[in-house]
Amino acid sequence: MSSSFGTIFAVTVFGESHGKGIGVVVDGCPAGLKIKTSDVQMELDRRRPGFTVHTSARREEDKVRILSGIFKGHTTGAPICMFVPNKDVDSSFYEEIKETLRPSHSDYTAYLKYRGFADMRGGGRFSGRLTVALVMAGAIAKKILNTKGVKIAAHITRIGDVVAKPASVEKILDCSCSSQVVCADSSVVEKMLKALEKAKREGDSLGGTVECIVVNPPLALGEPFFDTIEGDLAKALFAIPAVKGVEFGAGFSCASMRGSKNNDPFIIKDGKIVTETNNCGGILGGITDGMPIIFRIAVKPTPSISLPQKTVNMKTMKEETIRIRGRHDPCIVPRVLPVVEAVTAIVLADHLLRQTAFSKTLEE
Amino acid sequence: MSSSFGTIFAVTVFGESHGKGIGVVVDGCPAGLKIKTSDVQMELDRRRPGFTVHTSARREEDKVRILSGIFKGHTTGAPICMFVPNKDVDSSFYEEIKETLRPSHSDYTAYLKYRGFADMRGGGRFSGRLTVALVMAGAIAKKILNTKGVKIAAHITRIGDVVAKPASVEKILDCSCSSQVVCADSSVVEKMLKALEKAKREGDSLGGTVECIVVNPPLALGEPFFDTIEGDLAKALFAIPAVKGVEFGAGFSCASMRGSKNNDPFIIKDGKIVTETNNCGGILGGITDGMPIIFRIAVKPTPSISLPQKTVNMKTMKEETIRIRGRHDPCIVPRVLPVVEAVTAIVLADHLLRQTAFSKTLEE
Amino acid sequence: MSSSFGTIFAVTVFGESHGKGIGVVVDGCPAGLKIKTSDVQMELDRRRPGFTVHTSARREEDKVRILSGIFKGHTTGAPICMFVPNKDVDSSFYEEIKETLRPSHSDYTAYLKYRGFADMRGGGRFSGRLTVALVMAGAIAKKILNTKGVKIAAHITRIGDVVAKPASVEKILDCSCSSQVVCADSSVVEKMLKALEKAKREGDSLGGTVECIVVNPPLALGEPFFDTIEGDLAKALFAIPAVKGVEFGAGFSCASMRGSKNNDPFIIKDGKIVTETNNCGGILGGITDGMPIIFRIAVKPTPSISLPQKTVNMKTMKEETIRIRGRHDPCIVPRVLPVVEAVTAIVLADHLLRQTAFSKTLEE
Amino acid sequence: MSSSFGTIFAVTVFGESHGKGIGVVVDGCPAGLKIKTSDVQMELDRRRPGFTVHTSARREEDKVRILSGIFKGHTTGAPICMFVPNKDVDSSFYEEIKETLRPSHSDYTAYLKYRGFADMRGGGRFSGRLTVALVMAGAIAKKILNTKGVKIAAHITRIGDVVAKPASVEKILDCSCSSQVVCADSSVVEKMLKALEKAKREGDSLGGTVECIVVNPPLALGEPFFDTIEGDLAKALFAIPAVKGVEFGAGFSCASMRGSKNNDPFIIKDGKIVTETNNCGGILGGITDGMPIIFRIAVKPTPSISLPQKTVNMKTMKEETIRIRGRHDPCIVPRVLPVVEAVTAIVLADHLLRQTAFSKTLEE
Repeated sequence: MSSSFGTIFAVTVFGESHGKGIGVVVDGCPAGLKIKTSDVQMELDRRRPGFTVHTSARREEDKVRILSGIFKGHTTGAPICMFVPNKDVDSSFYEEIKETLRPSHSDYTAYLKYRGFADMRGGGRFSGRLTVALVMAGAIAKKILNTKGVKIAAHITRIGDVVAKPASVEKILDCSCSSQVVCADSSVVEKMLKALEKAKREGDSLGGTVECIVVNPPLALGEPFFDTIEGDLAKALFAIPAVKGVEFGAGFSCASMRGSKNNDPFIIKDGKIVTETNNCGGILGGITDGMPIIFRIAVKPTPSISLPQKTVNMKTMKEETIRIRGRHDPCIVPRVLPVVEAVTAIVLADHLLRQTAFSKTLEE
Repeated sequence: MSSSFGTIFAVTVFGESHGKGIGVVVDGCPAGLKIKTSDVQMELDRRRPGFTVHTSARREEDKVRILSGIFKGHTTGAPICMFVPNKDVDSSFYEEIKETLRPSHSDYTAYLKYRGFADMRGGGRFSGRLTVALVMAGAIAKKILNTKGVKIAAHITRIGDVVAKPASVEKILDCSCSSQVVCADSSVVEKMLKALEKAKREGDSLGGTVECIVVNPPLALGEPFFDTIEGDLAKALFAIPAVKGVEFGAGFSCASMRGSKNNDPFIIKDGKIVTETNNCGGILGGITDGMPIIFRIAVKPTPSISLPQKTVNMKTMKEETIRIRGRHDPCIVPRVLPVVEAVTAIVLADHLLRQTAFSKTLEE
Repeated sequence: MSSSFGTIFAVTVFGESHGKGIGVVVDGCPAGLKIKTSDVQMELDRRRPGFTVHTSARREEDKVRILSGIFKGHTTGAPICMFVPNKDVDSSFYEEIKETLRPSHSDYTAYLKYRGFADMRGGGRFSGRLTVALVMAGAIAKKILNTKGVKIAAHITRIGDVVAKPASVEKILDCSCSSQVVCADSSVVEKMLKALEKAKREGDSLGGTVECIVVNPPLALGEPFFDTIEGDLAKALFAIPAVKGVEFGAGFSCASMRGSKNNDPFIIKDGKIVTETNNCGGILGGITDGMPIIFRIAVKPTPSISLPQKTVNMKTMKEETIRIRGRHDPCIVPRVLPVVEAVTAIVLADHLLRQTAFSKTLEE
Repeated sequence: MSSSFGTIFAVTVFGESHGKGIGVVVDGCPAGLKIKTSDVQMELDRRRPGFTVHTSARREEDKVRILSGIFKGHTTGAPICMFVPNKDVDSSFYEEIKETLRPSHSDYTAYLKYRGFADMRGGGRFSGRLTVALVMAGAIAKKILNTKGVKIAAHITRIGDVVAKPASVEKILDCSCSSQVVCADSSVVEKMLKALEKAKREGDSLGGTVECIVVNPPLALGEPFFDTIEGDLAKALFAIPAVKGVEFGAGFSCASMRGSKNNDPFIIKDGKIVTETNNCGGILGGITDGMPIIFRIAVKPTPSISLPQKTVNMKTMKEETIRIRGRHDPCIVPRVLPVVEAVTAIVLADHLLRQTAFSKTLEE
């Protein structure tokens, strides 16, 4: 069941970049949750391509159709299927290069795995377009979390060489809807935009990092030994194409810290136990401690670049040079933000529903 | 089923640090695999505490007992249960401090989640001692992978401020059994040992990073959309206590690279398709491409330090100072290596068995 | 993940009787399987209502749309989503009676479970119409099994008081496409039709039993301890609305047999080990032995009858009399045959793909 | 994960008949449940062999050892491992006949599946002895259900030709601890005992049927589409060796009933909605309606009989006659009662924990 994620709140993804469309089935959503089509559409609009200079030239409306599970404006307890038809599809380039491997794309591994039968037009099922499915499911998950006052916000902390300064939780929440390049450090936004334009002009691409926070997370989410919050978030995040690293709290920088520095002292604040610092990113023993969850992901530069690249033609088994045409983002980091939020919401909604089961039963 | 991992080759972990012992059930192992008790014992011996100055003073024999699933020296196809009794247990300190939260331990989150019923002596089920279970299961997984010529090796790339130089795959394979501090850059081993001794002397602890490689991985392992090799490895790695970050190939450093630099050109070598560089860490589209799998994890400094720390007493709800006694590693990085290898083997063995199913059926 | 079934070949069902339509996502189907839309349509046509006197008056075209996973006539390895829009929907009656519980329908339990939010028009997600999803997924599963020469056939063994004589495997295979009431004992077909007409005329309904056989099943399918062939088939069969019993081989009649009679002696036939009798229904220890798999299910009489029935109005909490209008089969047994075959194919295809993994790996 | 069952309350079974022992890991049990070793031992004692004339001559103490998950008399939230060592093992007969297939045992299918590597002494993992694991897990599950006032009772409704009269729920609850042959119809108990003795004397064996009821089941358990209460109970029940049929409520007899007879009218009783009859066995749409759950299973006659039987020697590939020595029950029906109750408890406990999650979250 490799296209599904979740134990109680379970998400099943389908579709291809140049097929009929992208869809998702959300199973296990409690009945009685108010959902409007526009709740889902709003999230889709946030990730839609084609709206600025630095994003892909493909123009999709991405209009969601809800095929099941919603009735009279509420979830019914039945699986919710949502579907976005593909419209603006131009597959000519992919036919042309179908034997020529695009470097750092999944052409080669898909060929190995599916023995030539995969539909690789536009990257097929490996395309970033599949994140439409995550965003739709995330819209439902966010509604569940909203009932508990949970807030999720992602922002850009790096694009290429431009690095944002660390920001407070408040700033990150604030910035989240403010500009094309969402970054809590407003002093670098202009530089990021310029870097994007330059890379595009030069036919190249840029990577970056994204930070995501969850404010007011439910207490005690996470199910050790394996289903830790870190583990489940990481697993889901790596399903986003181009993610190559995930770190929580101090992350890799804790490697150079001493315990006396990295440890987060417990203190009393407003009568409640909190930690003075938050190097653990709100997660201890794989379980949320109530402090904001904080994590960062590394996003690789878009592999589709128009510069010439060395590669191999699988049919002739000869080395060749490839120039990738088609419509591609020079950097997917700006568009990945709503996807990261969606994935986070999906994982937390599932754990919220599992947790409730686990801890409440015997008290009732 | 949060204490289980895997789809076909499935591992279920049980036990506590100061309980009767640590065990694991390995289900789905094919019949006919040769296994000697010593195969498992050898891996356990690699992670055993108490053998050097810089590791924990707790002295456990860690003798494995195989309770099921092996008959006449072979796996039978039935679940394999392995158990290591705890012997050298001293719980006095934990009774003493049971209401005082140890900073950056799971005392607080365990208290929230299990409402005071968790056995937190020695960290209970959250203890690093649980990795005994992973190592036992990993020993079986390694035997499966051995039949395909797969090699796994982890080494230390950083302890505190001491950073190793990048090393070749060959060097990493070579070093893997050479010293107490296994690091492919021999020039820093002495410094690492000194840093460990210094931290211990000062009652403090150190973090670090570990790099793991898989040479000759089976082709085309990984099941998108969610069950990518990155995703499943990351999820399993975050089950190891103290891991706070995971990155594949170039990882976080790809954030600052351009696509033209990060992309791995395909070339022909010895008549086969390979990549010239390996920034993707042997994984494209979540699927292995045959190049070595490479990843790194961030390990936080051991939270148990003897320096005084600020914390809260849950009973009095007052702030207090805690000094942690007991027997602890100043740094778990050296002991985590066999655990990382074990986890890697578990994930790959499971994917190997899933993959075989997926791709071979119709051809037969 | 309660709307999903399967470990490798995994089926996720969605839709409602009076919603937009019925759909299914089939994940884990190997790439390279030839599938035409007509392969699926043909199976749908076999279960379609409205074609004879004794079936429901609702007339649906049931035209399948394949939304993903098929490319150039083959499976691609990506999830296959298939969707059948609902057309001929008349929900007026359900609005009228929405507070009045229909006896032996799921109105009451759905109300309890989903707290009034379920879409119960036409039975909603509990409707027999959901079996459209099973039939579509079964069409794919059958194609997989066809590559191994597996044959599945279901026939009616009882309708109301009319009982068919036991039939040979050959006869059951032969009859499977022969008439509106598919039954290997042709001598009772006419009686069955008459019983159906009589029940319909009287505003009542009939139950029955269905027998299903699998000829040439793959050897050694089934994964004890829990994932036995009996267990997985039974679980999937009980997802078909109205099924209230499942028995394998001699089934309930083995309760009155002595071991000396019930045991199936092993003999050699054509150089191969077979059993002389087949009281075990082709399954020993939960694993197929190569003999035909044989099982029977009990199907309850359709609960929707036009005769007056005693019931309760949930709003007034008063007892009332209900007369159910709308369009209903007097007996679903004839239409359940393709569904039973589909479910059987789904379970066996999943086990075939799991089995291959399990037994082949080490030999290669 | 074929040796595991359950989504939240998950049970993993291991061990063999003549190996070191039988064990089970229970994961997902809420913390804070009071458990004494004697709670588990009491259930084990109910299924123990060797206590009467008509049961197996093997004499096992079946003393449970709790290896994890219980601390200070309560569950901790960590996995509970329980283990019963094997003591009274005599494997000589199995060595003798290891190439000769025992009819209607799993020798042949195990041979096919595990290619000769299975430990088949005493039936190995296929032995009825594995039900020790179910009984231990069931003891924990019963404690969870006790907190909700749920009562489970199984009794014998048939042994060979001796059939019990239908009994009221009250009678079934009453009889459950009354004699060696637990049957609510006391008028047939003596006949059943005689039938057992006669079969034993003649070297033959008997089958039978068992009925199980659940009084005061939690409302609205069951998760359609696939995870119905019927489906999950059936799947788990078929894991019990020798079970060949499962039916709920009226079961197979509903095949001959008209809807007007089979339908259960809703009525008001003591201000609550109940059904007048209970042909549905307390389950509608796969979900509990609050009426007693009622189901029956068919148990085949023990395949081990001392009468001579026709079979095949796998080595010589010749037909032979086998006479099975060793210690066997002439009928496992009496001993299967606590196992059926245990399995029922396991399934309901899991659904109780899932259900709580599903329905309560949004209201809080």
